[in-house]
Amino acid sequence: MIPQNYIDMLGAKSVIRTLSEWATARGQEIGYDNVFDYSLGNPSVPCPEKFTQTMIRLLQTEQPVTLHGYSPSLTIPSVRQAVADSLNRRFGMQYGMEHIFMTTGAAGALAHALRCVCAPGQEVLVPAPFFPEYKPYIEGAGLVMRTIPPRPADFQIDLDAMDAAINENTAAVLINTPNNPSGAVYTAETMQALADLLTAASARIGRHIFLISDEPYREILFGGQSIVYPAKFYADTLTCYSFSKSLSLPGERIGYVAANPACQQAELIVPVCGQISRGTGHNCPASIIQLAVAQCLDETSDLSVYERNMELIYAELKRLGFEMVKPDGTFYIFPRSLEPDAVAFCQKATQYDLVLVPGDSFGCPGHFRMAYCIDTEKVQRSFAALERFVREEYGR
Amino acid sequence: MIPQNYIDMLGAKSVIRTLSEWATARGQEIGYDNVFDYSLGNPSVPCPEKFTQTMIRLLQTEQPVTLHGYSPSLTIPSVRQAVADSLNRRFGMQYGMEHIFMTTGAAGALAHALRCVCAPGQEVLVPAPFFPEYKPYIEGAGLVMRTIPPRPADFQIDLDAMDAAINENTAAVLINTPNNPSGAVYTAETMQALADLLTAASARIGRHIFLISDEPYREILFGGQSIVYPAKFYADTLTCYSFSKSLSLPGERIGYVAANPACQQAELIVPVCGQISRGTGHNCPASIIQLAVAQCLDETSDLSVYERNMELIYAELKRLGFEMVKPDGTFYIFPRSLEPDAVAFCQKATQYDLVLVPGDSFGCPGHFRMAYCIDTEKVQRSFAALERFVREEYGR
Repeated sequence: MIPQNYIDMLGAKSVIRTLSEWATARGQEIGYDNVFDYSLGNPSVPCPEKFTQTMIRLLQTEQPVTLHGYSPSLTIPSVRQAVADSLNRRFGMQYGMEHIFMTTGAAGALAHALRCVCAPGQEVLVPAPFFPEYKPYIEGAGLVMRTIPPRPADFQIDLDAMDAAINENTAAVLINTPNNPSGAVYTAETMQALADLLTAASARIGRHIFLISDEPYREILFGGQSIVYPAKFYADTLTCYSFSKSLSLPGERIGYVAANPACQQAELIVPVCGQISRGTGHNCPASIIQLAVAQCLDETSDLSVYERNMELIYAELKRLGFEMVKPDGTFYIFPRSLEPDAVAFCQKATQYDLVLVPGDSFGCPGHFRMAYCIDTEKVQRSFAALERFVREEYGR
Repeated sequence: MIPQNYIDMLGAKSVIRTLSEWATARGQEIGYDNVFDYSLGNPSVPCPEKFTQTMIRLLQTEQPVTLHGYSPSLTIPSVRQAVADSLNRRFGMQYGMEHIFMTTGAAGALAHALRCVCAPGQEVLVPAPFFPEYKPYIEGAGLVMRTIPPRPADFQIDLDAMDAAINENTAAVLINTPNNPSGAVYTAETMQALADLLTAASARIGRHIFLISDEPYREILFGGQSIVYPAKFYADTLTCYSFSKSLSLPGERIGYVAANPACQQAELIVPVCGQISRGTGHNCPASIIQLAVAQCLDETSDLSVYERNMELIYAELKRLGFEMVKPDGTFYIFPRSLEPDAVAFCQKATQYDLVLVPGDSFGCPGHFRMAYCIDTEKVQRSFAALERFVREEYGR
């Protein structure tokens, strides 16, 4: 018989999914082209041609028995080595193959990282705003999620609040930079201050607090800025990555956990990930996908559309009087809603065929998220609806 | 810091893996051709050409954004429908799309099935001999594995022992037919008797005991026999499947859970699987692999080599005086070892470059497993070593 906790989860339907389903249904009525669906973070640009060609070449030239054979339990060594080399080259790290564990996207990476450095019942601190799925990820590992209030002025981390929240039951801090939903990128100053805070707090509680850094948007940065790589700042860092956004491969479920070689028990992290897999049914990402991404580590899709869309939307929202932090990356923007109840605000927006997501499930009420991974042409067409919405509903 | 239970798991190294590593190392000394490695259940025949061609066609003709996009959380509807149709056609079932959930192989299927119908702390009964990974699968879901002693005369299920083991804490029975390691296929008589037993026991304890049927070897049957489909016999059955063996795709991690439409809470099983995924980091198998196998549901690799190898090995072992049950399927045979301590027996065999796996970790000491998914030519060459081994060590 089905355990009650899962039945309860069925009842608590995801707001994003509900809105996305509404958008699909509305699209069937009036044509999806006329629904301004800013709900889903699904990449809108194709994967690099090199990925497609690599897949075809593997299928045409490799022996099927080898190509489609079992991955070793710690995933494919040549792929792990290629990932380590790429990270070392790009960020001046010292990863070896033994620090890399390939996973089924960032969800798989987080499932392993959380179980690896936190024991059931321990707390994971998450600064708001945060990706709503962190809650089932953390609770699914038997852990307790404790949120840190947002800092809406710039969406950096409220470090005083975090320091106050740390206690002897704190096992890890989970951050996401560039951030979904705010589009903020944690600065080098934020990262250094966070590292100092965690070092001091670890000494205080007598145990190393791990930093779990979720970085699927790492390559989507605006204004030509360079990447701030969290593991450079704090030794006890597990980096969780997905190729879903950088290579536009969300359905192919491919990412990794990278254990900083300087972290506690560094040599055990990846072997333990292999053990965790046996209990969760993970057992490696698809072999051919592992092999193909290993050939594309220095590639990205053409991500420029996201910055173009951001600039257009930011200017338009500003013109309409919205307050917001200008995104430094991702394909999200997270303005303040025009009434305190963001759920009501987003509900009204649907009357104008605008699909916006209230910030409540991101731990940040009074804001709404727009995912602008859609065609620029559609972004531009949405502005008339947006203007009508704010004028008619809020008299702007 | 890493939880101690995972550190402990690292210490308990898999016997199969240790032997396989020994075989690889020995192969580097004397050439792998000269190591008679019967340790690993990795398919030795290529996938059907249709799978390769379907993959290439998808890559060449589909829009990358669609092809590599996120699966819906319950996996791809057209794929689920195709699997349902195929099972209905082949086994006279009544599956709808809503009863099928695609998973990352049988490991992923079992991870979902176990969590779906068993609450933490409940017991899962497993008849020996069994696949050793069942233990981490079951314990990883917070459940207790309770084994039923083997019936070595024919490796069917000891139903009296199972009936005696059922108690108010029993949530499910996990079977594997065709069976790894014995090669036995549970007969229609066994399945009917098991169904009757579970029906009576469920009435006795006042709760529906689920049957979880793990069937990755379903299509590897010898002697032209037809498939006995467990879900036909017992309503409360979740069928777990992997395409690893039938299509020779173990590395691509693709399989499914099929919930018998007649089972308790049938309409909730798949939605709950979607919730379970959020906690384990499963989040769907790779999209392109889902789409490609959906085109190959009525295909198999050329599996005839396994029956050919089985007949050769069975005849040779019989000639050398081994006692065993003749396999009806799979690519395993599970003879009695020539001394009661199968670990010692297999250890001695390595001196003859024969890699055999002791039955202890399969819950059946005094036996050893040979995985004959290797070239027939190598099987034949191994017989001289086998004969020398039994003559010199056991005077046969």
